[in-house]
Amino acid sequence: MIKAGIIGSTGYAGGELVRILTGHKEVEIVWYGSRSYVDKRYAEVYQNMFQIVDAKCMDDNMEELAKQADVIFTATPQGLCASLVNEDILSKTKIVDLSADFRIKDVSVYEKWYGIEHKSPQYIEEAVYGLCEINREDVRGARLVANPGCYTTCSILTAYPLAKEGIIDMSTLIVDAKSGTSGAGRGAKLSNLFCEVNENMKAYGVASHRHTPEIEEQLGYASGEKVVISFTPHLVPMNRGILATEYASLKKDVSWSDVKEIYDKYYQKEKFVRVLDEGVLPETKWVEGSNYVDISFKIDPRTNRIIMMGAIDNLVKGAAGQAVQNMNLMFGLDEAEGLNLVPMFP
Amino acid sequence: MIKAGIIGSTGYAGGELVRILTGHKEVEIVWYGSRSYVDKRYAEVYQNMFQIVDAKCMDDNMEELAKQADVIFTATPQGLCASLVNEDILSKTKIVDLSADFRIKDVSVYEKWYGIEHKSPQYIEEAVYGLCEINREDVRGARLVANPGCYTTCSILTAYPLAKEGIIDMSTLIVDAKSGTSGAGRGAKLSNLFCEVNENMKAYGVASHRHTPEIEEQLGYASGEKVVISFTPHLVPMNRGILATEYASLKKDVSWSDVKEIYDKYYQKEKFVRVLDEGVLPETKWVEGSNYVDISFKIDPRTNRIIMMGAIDNLVKGAAGQAVQNMNLMFGLDEAEGLNLVPMFP
Amino acid sequence: MIKAGIIGSTGYAGGELVRILTGHKEVEIVWYGSRSYVDKRYAEVYQNMFQIVDAKCMDDNMEELAKQADVIFTATPQGLCASLVNEDILSKTKIVDLSADFRIKDVSVYEKWYGIEHKSPQYIEEAVYGLCEINREDVRGARLVANPGCYTTCSILTAYPLAKEGIIDMSTLIVDAKSGTSGAGRGAKLSNLFCEVNENMKAYGVASHRHTPEIEEQLGYASGEKVVISFTPHLVPMNRGILATEYASLKKDVSWSDVKEIYDKYYQKEKFVRVLDEGVLPETKWVEGSNYVDISFKIDPRTNRIIMMGAIDNLVKGAAGQAVQNMNLMFGLDEAEGLNLVPMFP
Amino acid sequence: MIKAGIIGSTGYAGGELVRILTGHKEVEIVWYGSRSYVDKRYAEVYQNMFQIVDAKCMDDNMEELAKQADVIFTATPQGLCASLVNEDILSKTKIVDLSADFRIKDVSVYEKWYGIEHKSPQYIEEAVYGLCEINREDVRGARLVANPGCYTTCSILTAYPLAKEGIIDMSTLIVDAKSGTSGAGRGAKLSNLFCEVNENMKAYGVASHRHTPEIEEQLGYASGEKVVISFTPHLVPMNRGILATEYASLKKDVSWSDVKEIYDKYYQKEKFVRVLDEGVLPETKWVEGSNYVDISFKIDPRTNRIIMMGAIDNLVKGAAGQAVQNMNLMFGLDEAEGLNLVPMFP
Repeated sequence: MIKAGIIGSTGYAGGELVRILTGHKEVEIVWYGSRSYVDKRYAEVYQNMFQIVDAKCMDDNMEELAKQADVIFTATPQGLCASLVNEDILSKTKIVDLSADFRIKDVSVYEKWYGIEHKSPQYIEEAVYGLCEINREDVRGARLVANPGCYTTCSILTAYPLAKEGIIDMSTLIVDAKSGTSGAGRGAKLSNLFCEVNENMKAYGVASHRHTPEIEEQLGYASGEKVVISFTPHLVPMNRGILATEYASLKKDVSWSDVKEIYDKYYQKEKFVRVLDEGVLPETKWVEGSNYVDISFKIDPRTNRIIMMGAIDNLVKGAAGQAVQNMNLMFGLDEAEGLNLVPMFP
Repeated sequence: MIKAGIIGSTGYAGGELVRILTGHKEVEIVWYGSRSYVDKRYAEVYQNMFQIVDAKCMDDNMEELAKQADVIFTATPQGLCASLVNEDILSKTKIVDLSADFRIKDVSVYEKWYGIEHKSPQYIEEAVYGLCEINREDVRGARLVANPGCYTTCSILTAYPLAKEGIIDMSTLIVDAKSGTSGAGRGAKLSNLFCEVNENMKAYGVASHRHTPEIEEQLGYASGEKVVISFTPHLVPMNRGILATEYASLKKDVSWSDVKEIYDKYYQKEKFVRVLDEGVLPETKWVEGSNYVDISFKIDPRTNRIIMMGAIDNLVKGAAGQAVQNMNLMFGLDEAEGLNLVPMFP
Repeated sequence: MIKAGIIGSTGYAGGELVRILTGHKEVEIVWYGSRSYVDKRYAEVYQNMFQIVDAKCMDDNMEELAKQADVIFTATPQGLCASLVNEDILSKTKIVDLSADFRIKDVSVYEKWYGIEHKSPQYIEEAVYGLCEINREDVRGARLVANPGCYTTCSILTAYPLAKEGIIDMSTLIVDAKSGTSGAGRGAKLSNLFCEVNENMKAYGVASHRHTPEIEEQLGYASGEKVVISFTPHLVPMNRGILATEYASLKKDVSWSDVKEIYDKYYQKEKFVRVLDEGVLPETKWVEGSNYVDISFKIDPRTNRIIMMGAIDNLVKGAAGQAVQNMNLMFGLDEAEGLNLVPMFP
Repeated sequence: MIKAGIIGSTGYAGGELVRILTGHKEVEIVWYGSRSYVDKRYAEVYQNMFQIVDAKCMDDNMEELAKQADVIFTATPQGLCASLVNEDILSKTKIVDLSADFRIKDVSVYEKWYGIEHKSPQYIEEAVYGLCEINREDVRGARLVANPGCYTTCSILTAYPLAKEGIIDMSTLIVDAKSGTSGAGRGAKLSNLFCEVNENMKAYGVASHRHTPEIEEQLGYASGEKVVISFTPHLVPMNRGILATEYASLKKDVSWSDVKEIYDKYYQKEKFVRVLDEGVLPETKWVEGSNYVDISFKIDPRTNRIIMMGAIDNLVKGAAGQAVQNMNLMFGLDEAEGLNLVPMFP
C-alpha cells in the first residue's frame, strides 16, 4: 500500500482527494492535514465521511509527513508548497502539488501574476507539469509534479491538438470559461454565500486571471510560438463543473472530419478524454464526479472560426482526480486506478 | 457474471441502476430496456455513459429477457411488472421490481391508493418487501422482490427501531418529508420544468400520497398494531435527496442515550445505516450518490415528543442502490458489492 | 414626506427595506445605517441600487437619527434596539424593530431563549406586536412596534383563525417550516456558502429555535390557553420563501367549506392574505417579492387531522414588507402603500 | 386608459407583461390570450396572480382584439404575428410584436435563419426595430414595433457605442452569451426539466443561433459596414438573466476613460442603461426583475482587445419590459411608466 498524506485535506479539492483515495485499492491515507481543524475528527468536518474515515486532522508538518508518507498531496493556497519543499523531503517522498507553485517555468511570470516571491525556484525546472495526457512519460519519473489548474486543464486539453498541428491561428485564441462555485474554495467569504451566487452569473478576473499564463505557456509549447490569449472566467450557480468555450480563426480549410481526425490522433487512446460525436456538445453534468474531459467543436464557415468546447468536473479532472492520475503514473500503477468513476446524472 | 436486464433503463432510477451496475464486479448488463428509445444508443440518451456503455436500447420483452438474464430490474411505472410476470418467467429469472406492484400485501389497499387493478395478485404473498435491513433473510431466498419506495425507505428506517420497541405512540406519528426533483421522474411535464421548480418549495399529495399505506403497513408490522399516519411530501429545488422529519409522542421517559441504544441495537452492524452523533443532524448532501441512510433524533421534553430525522439519496438507497443491495442478497454476494459509493461533497 | 432611517441597512432585510421604501410615495430614506460599511456608498454594497441610491452608509447613531427621522427601522441582531431605545428617542420618533427584542411579553422567556439580558424591559409592555392582520388597531397608535419574525408570521397567520375559533387541539400542533437561505442573513459563515447549501436540505434548531416561544405566545392569545408546540425549521436551497406545514388534530367534525368559512371570517378583507381555492396548495414562488401570505389546508379524515400550509416571502411579509405595512398604519397611510408588489414568476 | 391585449399571455414573457402592466397606471389589460388555456382563469395558470387578475384566458382572435384594444402585444412563436397582421388591424390598433417576425429587414435572411416563409413581408419595412435607446424617435410614430430578442438587446447595447464610434474592429467581434432558463420558454420539454438543467452548463446553437443575424444587422447599421460575428449562447441553471461577454480588437489606442466617455455619450441620459464604475463588473442578479442593462468593460493591453460585458433580465429588458417601454413611446407616455422596478436582491 502506498502511504499518502494530504496537506489541506479539508478544502474542497482536499475533500475530493479523500473521496477518491478512499476508493483506491493501492493507497492508504496516513495524514489528513488541516491547519484549521487540527485534532478535530475529519468526519466532523466532512460528515459524508462519517464511519468511513476515522482519523483526526493534523497540522502541516511536512518534515514529519515526508517520513510517514510515500506521496504528499498539497491542496493548499499558492506559496505553501514552495516554502516547505526541500531536498531532504524530496529524497524521502514524492509530491503532487495542487497549487500553482511549480506550474510556470518562468519564475518572473509566476511572481508577477501571483504577486508573491517564489521560495524555492530551484525546483521549478525539475517539477513536471502534470497534464498526464501530454506529459505522461515525464510524470512517470518525477519526484515533484505540478498539478494543473482547473481552468487550465480544461482550456489546454480542448485546444491542444489544434495548437499542436498548427490548424488554428494562436493569436486569435479566446477562452471564455464558466465554473461552478466549488472552484472558489471553502473560505467563508461574502461573495461565495449562497444568496450571492445563486440565481446569478458574472465574469471575474477579466484579462487578469492567474490561470492565463499557465494556459499560454502550455499552448506555447504545443504550437511552438509565443501565445497570448484572452481568458475570461465566469462564476456559475452550480457546485461543480467547468465549461470552456474557445474561439480561434482557422489557418486551413478543414472539414469536421479533418478536425475530428486530429483530435483522435491525440486522444483516441486516452481513457479520460472523450471527443464527442458530431453535433453533440459537452455539458458539465455529463462528467460530474468523474475524471473525464468531454470535448466537441463546431466549424463556422461564416467567420472562418472554429469554436471548441470542453467540459470537466473542476474538482476531479481539474484537481483531485488528475492528482491521483499523476500519482498512479509516478508509482507505476494502472493510470485509471481509483478513477473509474462513472459520471453521476442527474 | 450475473446477467442483468433492466426494463425502464432510461428513467432516472434506471439510469442510476446502470451507473451502479457498471461498477459492480459480478454483474454484466445484457438488456437496456426502454420503450421510448428502442434502437437508440443508450449513451445518446445518457451522454454521461459515452464510451462506457455501447449498447442500444431495447423494447420491453420480458419473455425474451427472462431467457437471457439472471435478474430483471423493472424500473417502470406501476402496473407494468404485475401485468407481465408469470410462473414461466419466475422459473427462469429473478425479479427486483422497483415499482409499487408487490409492496403492499393487501391487494385492495393497493388498488384503492393506486387506482388500478392488480394483474397478478397471486404473487403478492410470495413477493418479499426488499427493505434489506429488516427483511434480509427473506430477501436471500426470494424470486421476486418488491423494492421499497424512496419516501418509504427513508421514513420507515428512521422510525423502525422506536416503533419496534414500543417507545413511541404510533397514533401520533407524523412524517413530513422533502424530496429532490429526480423523484418526480424524467417525464416532460410542465410542473417539473426548471423554472417551475427552481427557487420554489411546495407540498403535494397532502393526505393522499401513495407511499402512505406502504409506510403504514411496514411500521404496523414493526409495532404490532394498525398504524395510520400523516404523511406529507414536499418538492425541493435540488436534484437528489430525501429528508424525512418525523414527529411522535414518547410513551416512556427516555434519555438520548436510551434511544441511541435502541437505534444501535438494530443498526450498529448495518453498513448502510449511520446513526449520527448527538447534536449532528442529517443533511441530504452528506449521503448524495451513496447508499447510506443517515439518522438522527432529538427529544423535546417540552412537548414530550421525539423528532426523528432521516436522509437518503432517493435514487440510491431510495431506488437503484437498494435494488442492487437486494440483488446481492438474492445471489449470495457481498451485500455491499457495487455499493461502496462514497458520498460526493459538494 | 416621512423621513425614514434604517439601522442595519446592508443586511438582507435592510436591503429589502430600501428596495420597498424606494418605491413608497410618502417616504424618503434619510439614513442608511451600516456599522460595517460606514462611509461606503450604499450602491457599492448593493450594486442593484446603482444610480438609484446615491447616499453613503452611516454609523449607528440612534440619538442623531431620532432627530432626523420620523421613523427608525432597526434591522439588526437581537439586543441592539433594546440597548439603545430610551424615552428621549421615543418622544422624537417612532420605531419599527425588526429584531426580537420586543416581541415576547415575558422578559424571562426572551432572556431564556435568546440567552441575553434585556436592556430595556420597561418598553416591552408598550411595544405592539406588529402582526398587522391581528393587531391592526394597536399598531396605529404605537410608538414602538415589534415586527414579527419570518417563521412566526407565516406560522401564526396560517393557524390563527383555527386557533381562535377553537377548531383544533392546540396541544397537537406541529409546525414543520422550510426557509430559503436569505433568512440566515448576509454574514460570511461557512454554513451559508453556496456549495454547502446548494443541493442540500437539513433541519436545524430542532426543538430549540427562538421563534418557538413567539409562535406559542401569539397562538396562546388566540386560543386562550397556554400553547406549547413542536417547531422545526429547515434550510432550503433557494434565496427566498418560507413554507410552513402545520399539523393539528381537529376538535370538531368539519368540512372543507366549514374551515374555509372560518378563514374567510378573518381574512376575506385582508389584502395580503390569500386563502387559496380548494385543492390549490401554496408555493413559495407564487408570493416571491410580494407581501402576500398564501394559505391552504387539507382535512384528513383518516387521521382526524387538518394539515394547514402557508407561504410567504421571508424578506417581505416576513420582514421588510411587514415593517412597511406597520409604518403605514402608524402614520395613517394607506396600509398597502409601497406594497403593491406583484409576485415575480419565475 | 390604454386598452392592451396580449396574445400568448401564459408564456413566461406573456406572464411578465401581465406583471408589469398590472403596475402600469395608464394601462388596462382587456384580453389575456392563450390558445392553450382558453376559458381557464388566468390566475389558475399563474397562481401568483390570484386575487390580482380575475379574467379568463381567451383564444387568439386578432380581428376581434383589434376592435377592443389600443395595443396588442404578441408574445408568441415566430410566424404567428406575420400570419395575422393586416391593414385593417393596423388601422385600428398598434402592435408590439415580441417575436422575430419583423426584426430583420432582409426577408431572405429571416427565412433562411428561421426556416419559415414570411407571410406579410409588406410590413417589414414599416416595422420599427424597437430598441428604444437607439430608435426612440422612430418608435414614437410606429404602428408596428418589432421588439428585439433577449440575447440581441443585451449584445447590441453592450457593443453599440463602440461600433458606432469605430473604436473596435467589427470583424473580430465575438459574443459569448449566457442565459437563464426562462429564455427557453414554458414548453414541457425534456431538455428544460429541472434535473436536466440544474447543476449543469452547456452551449447550444453554436454558430447557428437565430439571434445572430439580428445582432449583425443592428451592429451593421451602427458601424456602417457589413458585420459577421461569432455568437454562442449558453444555458445557465438560473431562472432569469442574460450575461453577454463580448470580445473585439481595438482599432485605436484608448484608455478606460476614453471608452467610458464614448459610452456616456450614448447612455448618460438613458435611464435604463447603467455604465458601471471602473472595476465593477455586471452581474445578472443586480438587474433581476428590472428594466436595466448594466454594462462594463475592460481593456486588455496584452491582447489589444477590449472585453465588454452586459447584463439584463431576459424577461424584462429582454422582452416584456422593453415591450412596455416601446408602448410608452408609441403612446406618448413617460417612457419609464410602469418600469420603475427596483432590481430584487437576493
